[in-house]
Amino acid sequence: MSTLSNRQVILKSRPVGIPQAEHFELRTATVPELEDGQFLVKNHYLSVDPAMRGWVNAVANYSKPVQVGEVMRAFTAGRVVQSRHPDYPEGTLVMGLLGWQEYAVTNGKTIRRTVKETDLPLSLSLGVLGLNGITAYFGLMAVGEPQPGETVVVSTAAGAVGSLVGQLARNLGCRAVGIAGGETKRQLCLDAFGFDAAIDYRQPDLESALQQACPNGVDVYFDNTSGTISDTVIRHINRQARIVICGTASIPNWDPWPTGPRVDRHLLNKSARMAGFLAFDYEKRYEEAIDYLVPLVRNGTLQYREEILDGLEAAPGSIADLYAGRNLGKRIIRLTAD
Amino acid sequence: MSTLSNRQVILKSRPVGIPQAEHFELRTATVPELEDGQFLVKNHYLSVDPAMRGWVNAVANYSKPVQVGEVMRAFTAGRVVQSRHPDYPEGTLVMGLLGWQEYAVTNGKTIRRTVKETDLPLSLSLGVLGLNGITAYFGLMAVGEPQPGETVVVSTAAGAVGSLVGQLARNLGCRAVGIAGGETKRQLCLDAFGFDAAIDYRQPDLESALQQACPNGVDVYFDNTSGTISDTVIRHINRQARIVICGTASIPNWDPWPTGPRVDRHLLNKSARMAGFLAFDYEKRYEEAIDYLVPLVRNGTLQYREEILDGLEAAPGSIADLYAGRNLGKRIIRLTAD
Repeated sequence: MSTLSNRQVILKSRPVGIPQAEHFELRTATVPELEDGQFLVKNHYLSVDPAMRGWVNAVANYSKPVQVGEVMRAFTAGRVVQSRHPDYPEGTLVMGLLGWQEYAVTNGKTIRRTVKETDLPLSLSLGVLGLNGITAYFGLMAVGEPQPGETVVVSTAAGAVGSLVGQLARNLGCRAVGIAGGETKRQLCLDAFGFDAAIDYRQPDLESALQQACPNGVDVYFDNTSGTISDTVIRHINRQARIVICGTASIPNWDPWPTGPRVDRHLLNKSARMAGFLAFDYEKRYEEAIDYLVPLVRNGTLQYREEILDGLEAAPGSIADLYAGRNLGKRIIRLTAD
Repeated sequence: MSTLSNRQVILKSRPVGIPQAEHFELRTATVPELEDGQFLVKNHYLSVDPAMRGWVNAVANYSKPVQVGEVMRAFTAGRVVQSRHPDYPEGTLVMGLLGWQEYAVTNGKTIRRTVKETDLPLSLSLGVLGLNGITAYFGLMAVGEPQPGETVVVSTAAGAVGSLVGQLARNLGCRAVGIAGGETKRQLCLDAFGFDAAIDYRQPDLESALQQACPNGVDVYFDNTSGTISDTVIRHINRQARIVICGTASIPNWDPWPTGPRVDRHLLNKSARMAGFLAFDYEKRYEEAIDYLVPLVRNGTLQYREEILDGLEAAPGSIADLYAGRNLGKRIIRLTAD
């Protein structure tokens, strides 16, 4: 097995702003022999996430930047095909940070969970039952703390996280209002994900549309965009509102920090809070989220969309598409069928 | 008693920005006869608070604006001198929102607490055992949630609230770092209030001074200023830092909202939060704060400064002085000796 070849996507140069296909290259390496305590995972699916932009930035944010020449950091779902680790026997399904590559050798530290829901597609471990679901669950529940009857506004509402946030909010008895780019996504929010109201942010008068969609103001704002969309929503928060900062998709570059309206006085007047949220902080509680989400997936309460691209060659250009809003659903690279 | 005269300070015109002496005028009214369930308080002390700026702004923030022609809203401490209310017999000491005037008739709704610490000066009910103490206590404890060993930075650190925040933080085992304007106030932070470090924000390199004073970064930032002081501190927060927005003294006008660096991405990268804080939200828990603070005042752990002005005539110009940084200690108007 020492001659097993492993195709990988490498960070070739460091992007300023959104990573494009040209910032990556394909390389073929050889899978090393396993040492004691290691196992080999064959990746079936690779994840494409907006967070990857931050991971390749030169400036460390919440995690160490991926170095030029390294395999691109990514969540993957796959199967253990060789093992010298007692907890991960051959055949185990796993999800973890195993990178954009066909194979990964690990001692288990990069594994985030063992996938036990073998009745459900393995690809869900990268979406509704992976980081997207975990993000929506903890961001909404632990940071947003929605109460029944409250209004929850979500930006990038047709996206892999936003669509789940809206559905979880509705399921709790909240009014869910989605903000998305374009009529197709707006309709998707209403028809596929059951938002109570949905707004196309590209319309001429976002402020009026928001007021109409939120007659009782905004209690929780789950923000994936920053920028003018957020500025508009924040003007309409209620007393003791909670703003969850999960992403900043509308701002291409944070170095230097862009300027915008100072929010501190408004937060003071409203006794409101704005909290940055990273799913990684809840790593030890992931199974709590999964246990909550699995029954909702099985009984059809949680709807989700996947957009599957085939083959490792699709990976390099796949991040830029997310920021261009060209995807409809959780974007996944499929390397092999289940 | 129906001819008892009552000198009052009235809001004469609505200021834009900081209220000045010219926005108020003195008037003499007659104290009305008490109805059943009412009582008459003779005010001994009137409070002067930075929050008054917000109370007289045209735009409602967290409370209804004081109307032109009305008695200026203010906390006062005084004594019940006539009573037709069973809970407030003659001689009771009270603190409440009774306004800038010599006398006030109330049914008890504007009373915030009955002052039971008769061994301590009544004026403390407007400072360390009044809104200042309550603000410092809940803002730090309930919103800032400091842990022993953490670094707590406070702006307007020599002020009536800031000085208490620093002392409470130290008392919890935190490193307390104060930011104040000018060398006199900086020394006051160190000598009178026992901060571990204190910084004059007017110095040429605030950023370096802050880094030096906070070798382990900033875990809690209790902000009373907004503006460039805050921008500097926020750049140095640690992961999961808590920013408490208690005041915005450095910004004279919030209509329209001024611009500044967008903080949302930074809050995200740091899993940090920024929360607006109003002491009024904790009204039902005031006695919890007082119970915590009284022993610390009695045993000398909590130091405080009062700056007492004599006579109602001093009231109109007293707010502007606070914003000009001309006061050293909690500013109080004394109408009568205890």
